[in-house]
Amino acid sequence: MKRKICVVITARASYSRVKTLLIAIKSHPSLCLQLVITGSCLLEKYGGLTKLVNQDGFDPIIKVSNLLENENPTAAAKTTGLGVIELASVFENVRPDVVVTVADRYETMSAAVAASFMNIPLAHVQGGEVTGNIDEKVRHAVSKLADVHFVATASARNRLIAMGEVPENVWHTGCPSIDLAIQIKNDAAMRFDYESCQSFSSASKYIVVMHHPVTTEHGFTKDQFCSLVNAISALHIPTFWFTPNPDYGAAQILKEIQRYGETSKNLKIHFLRNLNPESFLKLIKHCACLIGNSSTGIREASLLGTPVVNIGSRQQGRERSFNVIDVDFDSNAIIEAVQNQLDHGHYDSSILYGNGDAGNQIADLLAKMKLSVNKQITY
Amino acid sequence: MKRKICVVITARASYSRVKTLLIAIKSHPSLCLQLVITGSCLLEKYGGLTKLVNQDGFDPIIKVSNLLENENPTAAAKTTGLGVIELASVFENVRPDVVVTVADRYETMSAAVAASFMNIPLAHVQGGEVTGNIDEKVRHAVSKLADVHFVATASARNRLIAMGEVPENVWHTGCPSIDLAIQIKNDAAMRFDYESCQSFSSASKYIVVMHHPVTTEHGFTKDQFCSLVNAISALHIPTFWFTPNPDYGAAQILKEIQRYGETSKNLKIHFLRNLNPESFLKLIKHCACLIGNSSTGIREASLLGTPVVNIGSRQQGRERSFNVIDVDFDSNAIIEAVQNQLDHGHYDSSILYGNGDAGNQIADLLAKMKLSVNKQITY
Amino acid sequence: MKRKICVVITARASYSRVKTLLIAIKSHPSLCLQLVITGSCLLEKYGGLTKLVNQDGFDPIIKVSNLLENENPTAAAKTTGLGVIELASVFENVRPDVVVTVADRYETMSAAVAASFMNIPLAHVQGGEVTGNIDEKVRHAVSKLADVHFVATASARNRLIAMGEVPENVWHTGCPSIDLAIQIKNDAAMRFDYESCQSFSSASKYIVVMHHPVTTEHGFTKDQFCSLVNAISALHIPTFWFTPNPDYGAAQILKEIQRYGETSKNLKIHFLRNLNPESFLKLIKHCACLIGNSSTGIREASLLGTPVVNIGSRQQGRERSFNVIDVDFDSNAIIEAVQNQLDHGHYDSSILYGNGDAGNQIADLLAKMKLSVNKQITY
Amino acid sequence: MKRKICVVITARASYSRVKTLLIAIKSHPSLCLQLVITGSCLLEKYGGLTKLVNQDGFDPIIKVSNLLENENPTAAAKTTGLGVIELASVFENVRPDVVVTVADRYETMSAAVAASFMNIPLAHVQGGEVTGNIDEKVRHAVSKLADVHFVATASARNRLIAMGEVPENVWHTGCPSIDLAIQIKNDAAMRFDYESCQSFSSASKYIVVMHHPVTTEHGFTKDQFCSLVNAISALHIPTFWFTPNPDYGAAQILKEIQRYGETSKNLKIHFLRNLNPESFLKLIKHCACLIGNSSTGIREASLLGTPVVNIGSRQQGRERSFNVIDVDFDSNAIIEAVQNQLDHGHYDSSILYGNGDAGNQIADLLAKMKLSVNKQITY
Repeated sequence: MKRKICVVITARASYSRVKTLLIAIKSHPSLCLQLVITGSCLLEKYGGLTKLVNQDGFDPIIKVSNLLENENPTAAAKTTGLGVIELASVFENVRPDVVVTVADRYETMSAAVAASFMNIPLAHVQGGEVTGNIDEKVRHAVSKLADVHFVATASARNRLIAMGEVPENVWHTGCPSIDLAIQIKNDAAMRFDYESCQSFSSASKYIVVMHHPVTTEHGFTKDQFCSLVNAISALHIPTFWFTPNPDYGAAQILKEIQRYGETSKNLKIHFLRNLNPESFLKLIKHCACLIGNSSTGIREASLLGTPVVNIGSRQQGRERSFNVIDVDFDSNAIIEAVQNQLDHGHYDSSILYGNGDAGNQIADLLAKMKLSVNKQITY
Repeated sequence: MKRKICVVITARASYSRVKTLLIAIKSHPSLCLQLVITGSCLLEKYGGLTKLVNQDGFDPIIKVSNLLENENPTAAAKTTGLGVIELASVFENVRPDVVVTVADRYETMSAAVAASFMNIPLAHVQGGEVTGNIDEKVRHAVSKLADVHFVATASARNRLIAMGEVPENVWHTGCPSIDLAIQIKNDAAMRFDYESCQSFSSASKYIVVMHHPVTTEHGFTKDQFCSLVNAISALHIPTFWFTPNPDYGAAQILKEIQRYGETSKNLKIHFLRNLNPESFLKLIKHCACLIGNSSTGIREASLLGTPVVNIGSRQQGRERSFNVIDVDFDSNAIIEAVQNQLDHGHYDSSILYGNGDAGNQIADLLAKMKLSVNKQITY
Repeated sequence: MKRKICVVITARASYSRVKTLLIAIKSHPSLCLQLVITGSCLLEKYGGLTKLVNQDGFDPIIKVSNLLENENPTAAAKTTGLGVIELASVFENVRPDVVVTVADRYETMSAAVAASFMNIPLAHVQGGEVTGNIDEKVRHAVSKLADVHFVATASARNRLIAMGEVPENVWHTGCPSIDLAIQIKNDAAMRFDYESCQSFSSASKYIVVMHHPVTTEHGFTKDQFCSLVNAISALHIPTFWFTPNPDYGAAQILKEIQRYGETSKNLKIHFLRNLNPESFLKLIKHCACLIGNSSTGIREASLLGTPVVNIGSRQQGRERSFNVIDVDFDSNAIIEAVQNQLDHGHYDSSILYGNGDAGNQIADLLAKMKLSVNKQITY
Repeated sequence: MKRKICVVITARASYSRVKTLLIAIKSHPSLCLQLVITGSCLLEKYGGLTKLVNQDGFDPIIKVSNLLENENPTAAAKTTGLGVIELASVFENVRPDVVVTVADRYETMSAAVAASFMNIPLAHVQGGEVTGNIDEKVRHAVSKLADVHFVATASARNRLIAMGEVPENVWHTGCPSIDLAIQIKNDAAMRFDYESCQSFSSASKYIVVMHHPVTTEHGFTKDQFCSLVNAISALHIPTFWFTPNPDYGAAQILKEIQRYGETSKNLKIHFLRNLNPESFLKLIKHCACLIGNSSTGIREASLLGTPVVNIGSRQQGRERSFNVIDVDFDSNAIIEAVQNQLDHGHYDSSILYGNGDAGNQIADLLAKMKLSVNKQITY
């Protein structure tokens, strides 16, 4: 009897980050994959994931629509509440042996609450890290509901143990997001196909911007965007700019992006919603500098050696490699840091976040580990 | 402008335990109380709290009905999801400055998720303790979502700090449940009025049983009940037996209680649903031994000096005074432990869980403390 | 490509009533059955349907737990709202070609709203009838959301057409509940096995009581019960009494039943929760008189020729055969009516509600009919 | 003791249409207004109503956020289910004597189900009319749940009576939307202030477009938009074009509008999200032709005498005055009809939908009418 492993994906980025894990579960002789897609990634406007997931060979998938219009933080709470209710039904019907939840977006709380309250063993991927934002609270709360942890770094493991998690339930497997990054890194032939980005001319040197709202600093969202866009404008370098995650504050950023698009007529900036995981990593691999507050700068970019300018509090405290320069939301500071990174060029690859085998390791552990829902803090 | 303090009560027992805090908030010159009643305590069959709360002078109260029929653990998850959704609406409409959530029942997660996701400072009462059951997971997860902690014991404070909470946000105030217990303890005149318990004759010596299901040990619920009821029957002492909380497994216990009631015709056992907080404490104060797995045995009973036989894993790890003997669900072991306690008689009072001023201390801190929703693990 | 027919069952009684339809859909070469079980019939305490449905060969079933504790009418609304949300997810995942909803219990509104709002053709069984209670509103509102109607009687068809439904979408197929009743009626060999009712002695003559709360007359629930129980007590005839549906008011009736059971020690009354559909119909077929306000008295009993005393407003206006005497909730009136029915004995069978082929007829129509979600009132 | 009248507003347009009723209730000596704002009108992107409502002197208002991201019809169902749940809580807390629901948008079903299931008398404004779209089903279903009806036209009253509603519960008061329109019509001084529409130059002659998706014809949304935009482009007349309601299909129209805006550079079309009710009516009063499928063309425009070209099935069957020409979604047909209307010029005012006193009449009836939740179809 195969163990049924139910993985709940709540955002496009999370899918990319566990894709190798999904493949490893699907192809494991002792495991059966139950894939649930929920939240923003069901919606076309946020880069609907359904088609991509089917193309990648995952079928069937279970869909749970639960995203409320997100103009205010009430919506985040209600989306999560709705997620708990609906995932409880999914779990009641498909009866997983283990539920896997990924990272620290607020919606991950849905799967964590539903599984733990229903006495289903809960596995958490990417726990034990540190950042700012509501993610910080969510990540550690999910760890406290989880029965087993698959962490990216040695210090993440130490942190979970310090928090009172039982050491034998905390596995340092590396992060599955690195598995894919290593494949892209090692494939000399692969280069990002600029032609696929319509309306943007080919460029030998370009930068990438990924800027998400900090939900706990909502009053500053507009100012933060202005500092950033002023810096990028002043740099006069071809730029791929990804629109934000659908979090509280995203609507404001999108409005500012639109306003900027209409008034500046800056042809050097190309706004993107998303790419498929492989194209995305190729874009990051070859870019001269990645700027913003996405965890991609900390995580995949460290493996790819991409220079990163990380801005503000969102990634504050997250362990990083030498490829990252940290600055505040200040135009001049951003410009200076980017110039420094352009001068430096690419960095050596770091395996801080994994050595490329996380997906397989986690799948093996899911197949073999002892299942339990009873745990107690160690002190 | 008074600070608006929204306290969310999810169970009858929680009300008793924070009653002195509610009074302290209500009468504080800088605070305004917003009282929300939700979960089982809205229902008559679980001892409907509405009337009692109104009698105690709290008015208006906001009611949130969210309890699903609880035959299975799916219901606990859905009740909580519904709670998140509805409390988000309540918070959006009454706009509290602080939300207070109490202890570790699964429904407390509703208030914790809704408040933290909406960037409302969250205060948690009774964090940092250790037990078994799903409560253990819930308690620590809520602590990770909370911005400020009011704890009952010094070791609870140390534990939260070890878990990475910022020390200046962890206040050792004692538990407000002890405030009421001290009033009862000090009032020599007050004695439990047996007459108010119809159909049960007055008794000079009686025992009390409080036995709740352990949701994570569901397969053993019936066996555990049988061990207990056999022991109690064999003791032949007048017994007040409280029916369980409406958790997963309670339906099974209630069925067994009914079956026992019908077949045994044991006139020495009187089954009770609940009492008002003061009568309840008087009953505990004067009883010869409190038996079961309720935290009352650990908490209020330590102050009152009542001998306790604590059974099984539910309170495992919770700090206790010398008034408690721990045994497994084994009839002979239970009988022997009760006999030992009867032989010993009452214990000296312990202030392990507080010195009687917790309600006032917490209200003062709520009025004065710096409010923030940004926190980060300390290591 | 088979048409996918999704039937949503919300109560135990509804299952019995469409069982022949479910069999007909399952065995139809052009149809594929998607069976959803929701509401009270998922819970053991209301006679959990899951086991029975599996025994009957229906597998898989989709389960949707949505029943809130039903002490007040808020619970009925919230249960229905939760049903809409969860059925929307079910429909999104299983993509039915037609959704079938049955009769007029309040929860049927869930399936009707979810399907019609999602542009899925909605078929309604048992529309066009008239009663009292909230059922009256629900039934006609569901008809207004439905695209096709399968009705039990000629006057139900006329009524729907008078209400503005397009005549060619209103099919007079008879009621599938009669299909099963005819099988029982024609099987001379089958007799209710009294032995299976433990603690009740065999009886040559017995009556059956089915009494449900009238949710819109809540203030009178206790009085109504008293009138009824007094009459039944006075009759001194062995009685099978079915406990009520889990509607608003049921808790009160259950409390009165328990009180009566404890105080009266009336050994002639045996309280039952439910039987399987076939045993139930055998019990009704052979009973001397069926008393109460259940539609069974109007519907199946007319085919079986069972004498019926129908009480109060709940079935007011529903078309009936000559086997029914109507009275108010008045003890003397009830006694007199029962005596008259006992004197009269069994009636001739009536085919007012169908001739036994409804299940097959409806399945054929579901396979062949033109599907559309556009309709307009005819005047 | 004043009767508490709870009015539930689910969309910006509904607010305009019952504004005079809200004023009448608020100022009525025997009534107390409880105003609930829910659905799209809470969101800024759909023209957030909160500020406007407060400016109009309504305070406090109760807010219920329930709008899911609306890319698919699943969202409409879930939004409605969430509305039922949350409105049930609101009604439980504010205990209205009557709930008033308006018109036929899908979300009105929320208030109708919650109120009727909770035994609260339900009043429906604008029932008995005929259209296409899901509105047609919703409107009649709500009528079947409602206890009292305030209708706009004599034939709407006749239709409800034909549907089996009790005649004395169906009041022909006219539509409160006409009350405001008459005020605007009679005020010679008031003229729409073009200056307030930034980026659009003053114009002596202009047309207005209001085009909403037909949720039941989703496959044709893009084609319908193209027919319409081609016709409007060809007309070369200054145009105010209102963006659609947030229904299923709106996202597609918004995308087409954006694409058109970017590619056509047509400076004659000004896209608007919304205006306050008075400015909106002034805009309609003075426009040369109103084009699209909004009920404004049928309702307010008939009173204002504005020439209307109504397109497609959305208003099919709704009673109309002589100011309306109906055409299909065909560019040439639209152009020809608009030309005919421009040639004709303004029409005489019609009082088909009311004589300007509906708000007061309805408030008086709400104060005096007998309250009941028991009704039965009349045949």
